[in-house]
Amino acid sequence: MYVSMSRLAVPAERAPEPVAAFKSPARLAGSATGFIDLQLWQSDRDAGEVVMVGRWSDRGVFTAYLKSADHKASHRRIDPGRKADITMRELEHTPTYEMVAE
Amino acid sequence: MYVSMSRLAVPAERAPEPVAAFKSPARLAGSATGFIDLQLWQSDRDAGEVVMVGRWSDRGVFTAYLKSADHKASHRRIDPGRKADITMRELEHTPTYEMVAE
Repeated sequence: MYVSMSRLAVPAERAPEPVAAFKSPARLAGSATGFIDLQLWQSDRDAGEVVMVGRWSDRGVFTAYLKSADHKASHRRIDPGRKADITMRELEHTPTYEMVAE
Repeated sequence: MYVSMSRLAVPAERAPEPVAAFKSPARLAGSATGFIDLQLWQSDRDAGEVVMVGRWSDRGVFTAYLKSADHKASHRRIDPGRKADITMRELEHTPTYEMVAE
């Protein structure tokens, strides 16, 4: 299994919004072959720290998704106000991992 | 669901070892009520970056585990050579999250 992890910094006062905001990308990614699931984690010490964890069957599936029309569409569908919030604060590169044990 | 994430920096040349090294802690945590699983992720860009992801039914279960004899035992069982490697490089605090969507 292959894991992608995006750590986003969003304004804490908008913390209740991520669940709704990320449902569309999850639906889109869900149509990609080899996509397992997309989880949204919210820090319990800093409500403004949100982690998106994507799980994929292997690295190839993930990189194919990044190049896909679905991926572009998922970013287009982010609310413009939210996008500005995220971009202004920080949008780190996406660390990726092989799940080596569980 | 509650998630704990420990990011460890280990020497890349010892990268093949983590799977075996972390099997004991996983077994011990497995005896805690409310423990779901312990996953080990290894970066595919930096073999020395290893993430331990623990999943728990809720925050209370996790904090109870931290105070337990099982937790102390799991740390005692880490190979002394490995422990020195980890400590010398970096042993971050453990960020924790509520899984708010999947």
